Amino acid sequence: MAFGWIDEQAALRRRAGLVRTLRPRPADSPLLDLASNDYLGLAHHPEVTEGAARAAREWGGGATGSRLVTGSTELHAELERELADFCGVEAALVFSSGYAANLAAVTALAPHGSLIVSDAGNHASLIDGCRLARGTTQVVAHADPEAVRKALTTHDGPAVAVSDTVFSVDGDAAPLAELAAVCRTRGAGLVVDDAHGFGVLGAGGRGAAHAAGLAGADDVVVTLTLSKSLGSQGGAVLGPARVIDHLVNAARTFIFDTGLAPAAVGAALAALRLLRREPERAARARTVAGELHARLTAAGHEAVRPDAAVVSVRAPSPEQAVRWAADCRAAGLAVGCFRPPSVPDGVSRLRLTARADLTEGQIERAVQVIGETRP
Amino acid sequence: MAFGWIDEQAALRRRAGLVRTLRPRPADSPLLDLASNDYLGLAHHPEVTEGAARAAREWGGGATGSRLVTGSTELHAELERELADFCGVEAALVFSSGYAANLAAVTALAPHGSLIVSDAGNHASLIDGCRLARGTTQVVAHADPEAVRKALTTHDGPAVAVSDTVFSVDGDAAPLAELAAVCRTRGAGLVVDDAHGFGVLGAGGRGAAHAAGLAGADDVVVTLTLSKSLGSQGGAVLGPARVIDHLVNAARTFIFDTGLAPAAVGAALAALRLLRREPERAARARTVAGELHARLTAAGHEAVRPDAAVVSVRAPSPEQAVRWAADCRAAGLAVGCFRPPSVPDGVSRLRLTARADLTEGQIERAVQVIGETRP
Repeated sequence: MAFGWIDEQAALRRRAGLVRTLRPRPADSPLLDLASNDYLGLAHHPEVTEGAARAAREWGGGATGSRLVTGSTELHAELERELADFCGVEAALVFSSGYAANLAAVTALAPHGSLIVSDAGNHASLIDGCRLARGTTQVVAHADPEAVRKALTTHDGPAVAVSDTVFSVDGDAAPLAELAAVCRTRGAGLVVDDAHGFGVLGAGGRGAAHAAGLAGADDVVVTLTLSKSLGSQGGAVLGPARVIDHLVNAARTFIFDTGLAPAAVGAALAALRLLRREPERAARARTVAGELHARLTAAGHEAVRPDAAVVSVRAPSPEQAVRWAADCRAAGLAVGCFRPPSVPDGVSRLRLTARADLTEGQIERAVQVIGETRP
Repeated sequence: MAFGWIDEQAALRRRAGLVRTLRPRPADSPLLDLASNDYLGLAHHPEVTEGAARAAREWGGGATGSRLVTGSTELHAELERELADFCGVEAALVFSSGYAANLAAVTALAPHGSLIVSDAGNHASLIDGCRLARGTTQVVAHADPEAVRKALTTHDGPAVAVSDTVFSVDGDAAPLAELAAVCRTRGAGLVVDDAHGFGVLGAGGRGAAHAAGLAGADDVVVTLTLSKSLGSQGGAVLGPARVIDHLVNAARTFIFDTGLAPAAVGAALAALRLLRREPERAARARTVAGELHARLTAAGHEAVRPDAAVVSVRAPSPEQAVRWAADCRAAGLAVGCFRPPSVPDGVSRLRLTARADLTEGQIERAVQVIGETRP
């Protein structure tokens, strides 16, 4: 029977305690949210939701076509200009998701005969980009510029190194300046996914590449999401104008996808303008992360020192991680729960998000609940 | 220098007349639109744009996380229930784009050791799904159930056949009933992308699979977009509950992507309810397509008889297709222009969309402009 093998896989998952189920949330959830990626607390900001509503009314419910046909509005162009200007790069290109942006950047910048050097801890979308690209991929040790250097010396044609700037699971940062230096020595490009750095790191939230002095470099390409710090949906690729022009011509997830919906463009634009006006939000997210980490480690938890706004707490096993997160939820606290196969090293974790708008009282309550529910 | 090869590729594209550039449109474009995929004319319908605006206000500018963490709202669940109910299937799962939905369906349903039989005319997102899947892909002749049958007989393990229902370039339909029969004989699954059939074909726009009597079949999986007939953004996979559960657990573009923005969910939900209330919109899109085709062929153009709402008109060369489309635009008519590498057969075309809300006068004007600008 067709799809009969699915039942066997489902049974295996049940036995391993790895079944995932959707838990739709109500609009007025009573939970304290330390699980979302709404780092700056902007997803529900009235300027952001009004930006979405206004854009839908003025520009329609959807973009109506590929960006190359009818799907590019002046609103898309405005967001692209303001993103590029904010981050100090020549040009930006907006996609329907960060996943699509990463697929586009990696596949379009790694042609046949090229080498891709990919960090072992990279996000699924970068990995899928490597798999789809015509170039050959070498996976190297996590956050290891020397390993990247060695891999690059094995190859003579075009090459790119690909890395998250802040790794989603543990919240640790990549050594960007060192990576860029290594790439430059070999004439290789550097593609970095700033999904978890943009809005949090760098001056006023300009991101990890900006913080590393790489803004505007002609050999660095940055991808980011509009769905985390900007509280909207979508992704973007930022870099030299010639790279962006190349993506317009060559990136399949740009050419063959419907453009990002106007409401998402409007929300992201409103959030970006808010961030420019209130740059202290970025620093606040980092402060909250530091506080969460300090209090959790003081309470005896094994938490990784956060480089951005993700605080990762180790759990003894997948089953206990799931129970821990469920017990937090029962006590009114939403936390993320990462376990195989979503974690490259097989270690299960609670994943906490240090939202910029968390109050001292909320931070205290979160730490208390996590302690009380500890397995 | 990093990315130096990009300049060479750009020069080649310029010489071949294949440079693509973005042309952002204003909110109040004076052009008559026969280029978008807004088949039912719903993208600007006040109920749809209000659905988007209301959802943004109530649920926020973004979904704030993966559907498995904080990104599933009750609004997502509502849309999934209503989509499944409308199409007569057990369950539905919403994605941030149709591209992501196709990557998910193909990769999750073609495990290691399986065979994928893929139509030579399939959309880029299905092709990328095949490339990413662990199974082995055999590309077969376009719209040829016998070729699918032969390919399936070469393999003993799990297998799926993958096809668009309506092919985007020429607007022709796949022989779905025959494909399903061939798959069934071999115990293979059938995955069909109804991006251009949903909302146009079948009773009240229930889509090509419904029209072929395949609604609710336990070996058929349908993907669709929310960005065409529903005038919003996003994609969905529809099928047996066990298949949908499997996608929740196994599909990387579901697990590792931010959930679809509430505004897009709200717009799609409003459009779906509108379509249920006004089922004649689907038939009207088909009527408009038939009229466009009849008038164009009567005027001596080489147009493919449309099976849904896409009318494709052959152009003599890529350069002339580009000039033809530009001359239409100068005369106030927006048409699509497909040329290499977006067309599998290398033939350049004007691509017209038969929107349900086109008036007789607009159809007449469109045909007149296309005739007057003919190269």
